[in-house]
Amino acid sequence: MTREHLLLSSVANERVKLWSSLLEKKHRDRQNMFIIEGIHLIKEAVKSGVAIEAIVYDADRGLPTEISTIMEQVPSYTEWYKASKQVMSKCTGTESAPPIFAVLGKFKISEEALYEKNGLVVVLDGVRDPGNVGTIIRSSDAVGANAVILGKGCVDLYNPKTVRSTMGSLFHIPIVEGDLIPYIQKAKEQGIHIVGTSLQATDNCYSYNWQDGSWLVMGSEGDGLSSEVEALVNKTIIIPMEGNSESLNVAMATTVLLYEALRQRKFN
Amino acid sequence: MTREHLLLSSVANERVKLWSSLLEKKHRDRQNMFIIEGIHLIKEAVKSGVAIEAIVYDADRGLPTEISTIMEQVPSYTEWYKASKQVMSKCTGTESAPPIFAVLGKFKISEEALYEKNGLVVVLDGVRDPGNVGTIIRSSDAVGANAVILGKGCVDLYNPKTVRSTMGSLFHIPIVEGDLIPYIQKAKEQGIHIVGTSLQATDNCYSYNWQDGSWLVMGSEGDGLSSEVEALVNKTIIIPMEGNSESLNVAMATTVLLYEALRQRKFN
Repeated sequence: MTREHLLLSSVANERVKLWSSLLEKKHRDRQNMFIIEGIHLIKEAVKSGVAIEAIVYDADRGLPTEISTIMEQVPSYTEWYKASKQVMSKCTGTESAPPIFAVLGKFKISEEALYEKNGLVVVLDGVRDPGNVGTIIRSSDAVGANAVILGKGCVDLYNPKTVRSTMGSLFHIPIVEGDLIPYIQKAKEQGIHIVGTSLQATDNCYSYNWQDGSWLVMGSEGDGLSSEVEALVNKTIIIPMEGNSESLNVAMATTVLLYEALRQRKFN
Repeated sequence: MTREHLLLSSVANERVKLWSSLLEKKHRDRQNMFIIEGIHLIKEAVKSGVAIEAIVYDADRGLPTEISTIMEQVPSYTEWYKASKQVMSKCTGTESAPPIFAVLGKFKISEEALYEKNGLVVVLDGVRDPGNVGTIIRSSDAVGANAVILGKGCVDLYNPKTVRSTMGSLFHIPIVEGDLIPYIQKAKEQGIHIVGTSLQATDNCYSYNWQDGSWLVMGSEGDGLSSEVEALVNKTIIIPMEGNSESLNVAMATTVLLYEALRQRKFN
């Protein structure tokens, strides 16, 4: 059914050394590549048409059926390998390695989608937790937001934990990484509102008009927004707290706001 | 400033053995006690007036100022100890132990709050992830829900990871653990709607009238609701998905629904 794929048994193999180096950000940046793990993410990657350098599966367990049935949709340049347990573990940094992983080229994102007049964009400033960033990407996808922008203090998009917690949404929505200031300034020039949360805000998230083009900027739970970004915010809103809870985590808060935006835009 | 507290240096001490056994559910159930870690949770526990059996702090680091300043609010029966690093680690199951932990009696919850005519109650069926359960408790607190009910398949409320991820909200909102069926049946008898999510639902979460007394039942991401619970649901709703995302995680979904309930109840 499948061609005979080259077996990688030794962790000393040059390819294996390269791939396992991608666990570290500096090597991902240098090689412009990253790794995704598991059947679901690989199916999503294939469907989305991103550049897949290599697909590597556990030689003992064999190529998972869900992947063998979509082999024709995989680019012809993609290299296929089977690998020993040791190699699978080495490249994914886990004792209990997944049955399959893939090596992808980092995304090239067109920035056009960002500045749509009535768009909805999520901007994260210093959000370091990969689970939170991944979850926010997933929620942004769910409401059909235009894009997500990750500022410099955020965890790397290509961090394995971030990738995992997006549950595939990183293939569905444009995600840009970089210095937030010029992006936000350009959005403001186009009349887009820069919306931040503040405990001192007089408007709540239900009275703000989310039909206006809006960039929602969110900081980390501990530190909030950096002062440079905060200075660019021109609409502040508050999420009501009725009980004795002091706050929501940043992923919850962002999801609540995005769904209020969706409600006003589509279900009002 | 503080009295001289007894030093616990050996992990062989009987108290230390008892407390460290509370890392396991069966011992928490048997002893009817559990452990909370860190300054924030202890402050919340003191404020809420729950039964605090003991407070134990790292002898090297000393009693944290935030706790010494509220010592008068701690019940007089509460025992105070200072402990070695080894004891701190043993009782909290962590290498890098927190500066302080407390041993609490499990809650006794009055079930009256559950059946309020126009109430909002969150019911979890088989949600095993402690982070998700903790987050849902935090969101339920934030919207001022009446209570949370954890069915038998859920992670234990007193699991250290659940406790930690509630961020103190477990002290703010009544939380009941038990077999869901009799609770739900009783609520139905009082005319309360039993609301579940379904991809086949024709109503979305914005068209459902959340001003009606509502029990929101949520299952795990993988398995959904158990068939017994599903059979008792009399309103099904769907959370709109606009992008290519297939779902939200159960904590996100619950938070979105709770905030829509809050919007309709208070900000409409």
